[in-house]
Amino acid sequence: MIGKLTTLESAALRSGLNVSDGHPRMPLTQSQRTIIAGLGELFEEALKRPFEELAEETHRAFLHGLGQHSAPLGTGRLLSCYSSSVAIDIVARALAERTAGVALIHPTFDNIPDLLKARRLRLVPIPEQAFLDGPPDLAEEIGAVFVTTPNNPTGWVLGEQPLAGLASWCARTGRVLVLDTSFRGQDTRAQYDSYRVLIESGAEWAVIEDTGKLWPVLELKAGFLSWGQHTALSLADGFDDLLLSVSPLVMLLLNRLAQDATLGGYQALHQLIAGNRAILAGALAGRQLTMKEPQSRISVAQVSLPAASGSGALYQALLARGVHVLPCRAFHWADPQAGAHDIRIALARAPWEVRTAATVLAEVANDPAEPSAKAPDPHP
Amino acid sequence: MIGKLTTLESAALRSGLNVSDGHPRMPLTQSQRTIIAGLGELFEEALKRPFEELAEETHRAFLHGLGQHSAPLGTGRLLSCYSSSVAIDIVARALAERTAGVALIHPTFDNIPDLLKARRLRLVPIPEQAFLDGPPDLAEEIGAVFVTTPNNPTGWVLGEQPLAGLASWCARTGRVLVLDTSFRGQDTRAQYDSYRVLIESGAEWAVIEDTGKLWPVLELKAGFLSWGQHTALSLADGFDDLLLSVSPLVMLLLNRLAQDATLGGYQALHQLIAGNRAILAGALAGRQLTMKEPQSRISVAQVSLPAASGSGALYQALLARGVHVLPCRAFHWADPQAGAHDIRIALARAPWEVRTAATVLAEVANDPAEPSAKAPDPHP
Repeated sequence: MIGKLTTLESAALRSGLNVSDGHPRMPLTQSQRTIIAGLGELFEEALKRPFEELAEETHRAFLHGLGQHSAPLGTGRLLSCYSSSVAIDIVARALAERTAGVALIHPTFDNIPDLLKARRLRLVPIPEQAFLDGPPDLAEEIGAVFVTTPNNPTGWVLGEQPLAGLASWCARTGRVLVLDTSFRGQDTRAQYDSYRVLIESGAEWAVIEDTGKLWPVLELKAGFLSWGQHTALSLADGFDDLLLSVSPLVMLLLNRLAQDATLGGYQALHQLIAGNRAILAGALAGRQLTMKEPQSRISVAQVSLPAASGSGALYQALLARGVHVLPCRAFHWADPQAGAHDIRIALARAPWEVRTAATVLAEVANDPAEPSAKAPDPHP
Repeated sequence: MIGKLTTLESAALRSGLNVSDGHPRMPLTQSQRTIIAGLGELFEEALKRPFEELAEETHRAFLHGLGQHSAPLGTGRLLSCYSSSVAIDIVARALAERTAGVALIHPTFDNIPDLLKARRLRLVPIPEQAFLDGPPDLAEEIGAVFVTTPNNPTGWVLGEQPLAGLASWCARTGRVLVLDTSFRGQDTRAQYDSYRVLIESGAEWAVIEDTGKLWPVLELKAGFLSWGQHTALSLADGFDDLLLSVSPLVMLLLNRLAQDATLGGYQALHQLIAGNRAILAGALAGRQLTMKEPQSRISVAQVSLPAASGSGALYQALLARGVHVLPCRAFHWADPQAGAHDIRIALARAPWEVRTAATVLAEVANDPAEPSAKAPDPHP
């Protein structure tokens, strides 16, 4: 094991070119810069207003801006957490009180299986494609299904019809359906009203949303955890044990950023990511490296090496040149070998950063000093 | 059960006079106001600097400012979490991998036992006084001791000599010693170098520090989790599953606030809290209500009712008048009845807020409409 993905991402914060973590690190847009310049005034405003009012406004701006008109605003079933990971852990704790195991999408970012396992939940991997093939075949003791959509690192999206089918099946079989939609803001295909589908299904459900993948505001963010009227999980208790509230200033800032996003900010973000994906694809063209999911719209891209090459060696070779990427074994939490030939590159960066990383990547993949990644013809 | 303490505190955020939670909600000082007005520039600075450098500077400013010169700065064994509760949960998770049970100070804020219990740890209550009487008498399977010092709600402090004795005993018996020092900044008696004592003892230890009790900056805060060189707990793994990093902006802000605090800010804070404690004591003088721990220096105070009166009824009567306090049963997590006659009042507030709350409290305690809290002579 090279280690947890976040451990590797953490090394990338220290030095070098960081195209490792999926957090947004591109330059602020002009309107974001204006919002940030007003942080001092936002503080004064947040100080004066009741937290609940602020929070509900932010929930509305963020969730309605992403098409989630049926999200349970103002019901007490929509909580603001420090992060989506904290929200996932609250869900994991509540699930552990109720069931022995969870069916979890495979692959996905390794902190999700690790948080669930730390709550002593048994995990059953479900490949993305299986969610399109009808209800999974699960043992009785697997009482919940957890889907990351859009998924990280693949960008795969669970569409409205498959979600409706899965949710109905969960309702019929008494299982809880959990969605982690942290990357929703990056892909309009994930912006149909998921809450409507979940509510209409009659299933017990929980959804984790995240503002933290969208705006380069130095980790000022929140994760939103909501659940259905009939969801029998102790989510509020788990929340109350961890926090009284997130920062009202952060909530007000997120409100402004969400408003700005609906007025063109999302479009600019989607263009930046698409542009960076094209830069990466362009640098790889004609090499032995391929874009694994060219249709993905999220802010990370997987690059596949030739079958004979290991991503571990490439990761190390890039590291030696000061470029931090992620090797993908750990995403395949039930079968690390399935990720042995892939690396993940972050795209929520300045274009020059992606271009530099892509150039070094293309060089390293052809470098005779890096035999495992050596291409048969270095100058095609 | 009335509910978790945080659930009650959360109600106090909605309306009325909130002397419920222990978070700082007094007006900013002039120098704090200047720091906040510069948030926009702090953002620019935080954007440019490596996170690790920022973080270490903040750790130094905060921990050295509180006398903790032996804290493990720059060792990789000092992590910045979203909050002290998140840090406690990371410790709870790691302890659960190693031991079946924890000896925990009694009383203390209920989220600590609840977070430990949610990790399936068995708890053994240890009264504060017992820590002064020599090593506790613990079953073999209780592999850790958890002490909140200064303790919430009592303000009790574990002194240097008793800590040294406890730590040596933990070293001899192979137990982990965990300190939650979240209220340290409010009481100079807790500002001897705890890390030196822990390191010299040879024990395995972890310490949770908190910036969140000191400065009224809208929950922009961090919890710091550190541990000893020989502490065999998977704390870094638990951290990596939850977060990549806290906000660099928050870290830089905390640095400035910590610097300001050592240049007079702590003194002003201690004076405010002492002044508010005196206001409360003055309003209760001659009533049937007493300050339970007049020597406490932390930002909450317990008020004891006559033995015949229940704090639940008083809590409700205050609530009816728009004043939110905390009834103290839940602090006594192993024996709620022991807190049945106490309420807790927050002191990190503007003096007028404490004065108003104290006046209403004195009135309610004498109000014939509130029989259980009725004083024998309403006009002494």
